[in-house]
Amino acid sequence: MTDTLTIVFALYPRVTHLDFTGPHQVLCRLPGAVTHLASVDGGALTFDGVTFGDLERLADIAACDVLCVPGGFGTMDAMGDARFMGEIRRLAEGARYVTSVCTGSLILGAAGLLKGRRAACHWAWRNQLALFGAIPDGGRVVRDGNVFTGGGVTAGIDFALTLAAEIAGNGFAQGLQLSLEYAPAPPFDAGRPETAPPEVLARVRAMLDATGATRREAVEAAALAM
Amino acid sequence: MTDTLTIVFALYPRVTHLDFTGPHQVLCRLPGAVTHLASVDGGALTFDGVTFGDLERLADIAACDVLCVPGGFGTMDAMGDARFMGEIRRLAEGARYVTSVCTGSLILGAAGLLKGRRAACHWAWRNQLALFGAIPDGGRVVRDGNVFTGGGVTAGIDFALTLAAEIAGNGFAQGLQLSLEYAPAPPFDAGRPETAPPEVLARVRAMLDATGATRREAVEAAALAM
Repeated sequence: MTDTLTIVFALYPRVTHLDFTGPHQVLCRLPGAVTHLASVDGGALTFDGVTFGDLERLADIAACDVLCVPGGFGTMDAMGDARFMGEIRRLAEGARYVTSVCTGSLILGAAGLLKGRRAACHWAWRNQLALFGAIPDGGRVVRDGNVFTGGGVTAGIDFALTLAAEIAGNGFAQGLQLSLEYAPAPPFDAGRPETAPPEVLARVRAMLDATGATRREAVEAAALAM
Repeated sequence: MTDTLTIVFALYPRVTHLDFTGPHQVLCRLPGAVTHLASVDGGALTFDGVTFGDLERLADIAACDVLCVPGGFGTMDAMGDARFMGEIRRLAEGARYVTSVCTGSLILGAAGLLKGRRAACHWAWRNQLALFGAIPDGGRVVRDGNVFTGGGVTAGIDFALTLAAEIAGNGFAQGLQLSLEYAPAPPFDAGRPETAPPEVLARVRAMLDATGATRREAVEAAALAM
């Protein structure tokens, strides 16, 4: 009989949904996997026009094997939500693996879970990890002990396959990769600031600044509150 | 003022959710994009434990610019649902782009939309496209006129960026790629049957056969009913 593997995705308003749907589609196929999508209040949350329902309440989940925190434009607000951050700390304490995708690592940092640890993050926010005592790492997937962090959004799929290999072995993870036909072939080589055309990088930087999502002051406030 | 770009994801029971969440996260950021997640009955559908709510009824959507049909283990049953297939045909007729991800192309085929056209599909089901008069193509993203089809599951992201470039230009699509940090780095090279270790391929084939999801007779029945 396969043991249960409890996987919790901790959601909050204005998450980038692909940050967790990508990893979910991989990890839900692990042996014994029982996945939970949960938020502070449970119920439903709508991200970019997609409504996710039947969410559980984080407080109702006693413990988990894998805690995964996705990122998104709501990251800064989530850091300021004491109930959310309290649940992150509580679930992380008993988890075998503490994980994040994209700016979810800033939440792990704000929860005090990354002190002295290397961690990945979306390229535009990566440096802010240092405010929480973490060591920003440009890797696509970064492991430091039992903490696995992925880079921006789509890195969640690479992260999930890496974690799947850790939990169920390389062969099983390769089977997941094959069943999901994950042989990526992007039409452009513009996925990182180092490879994107300069005018594209400038436009995306300006767009992110305009959303206020890079607000360093919010991160600094969260770091002071640690 | 930007014109509205109406994008419909046509859902049905037992869809693989990453087939549409991946493309949705890309396409929802196109200028003027208004996305609709819709099914025959509307309401909610749960895929692999994730509940998607606030679904619209396909019949309530007058027309769309982009019709996208995802795949999944429920593809064969969807082909047998006359109401679903009727809506697919109706929406496709007025769409600028008729698209699919994974086994969604079998639904396009069963709807009579791929006769004489090249199309992609998940590797395990690709050959069945021929039963609908389509030309199976091993490409990650295949374009034939206004029909764009992606390969298995994760090909949806490559498909969406390709379509984004068609609609909004290469520079805009590159900006989306950068904002989603789509610089994939799979931990293994096992995403296609040609590259997966033979024992992994054998196990995944056996698993897919066991689910009955490769049932050729269902596809043959749908082809006869065309």
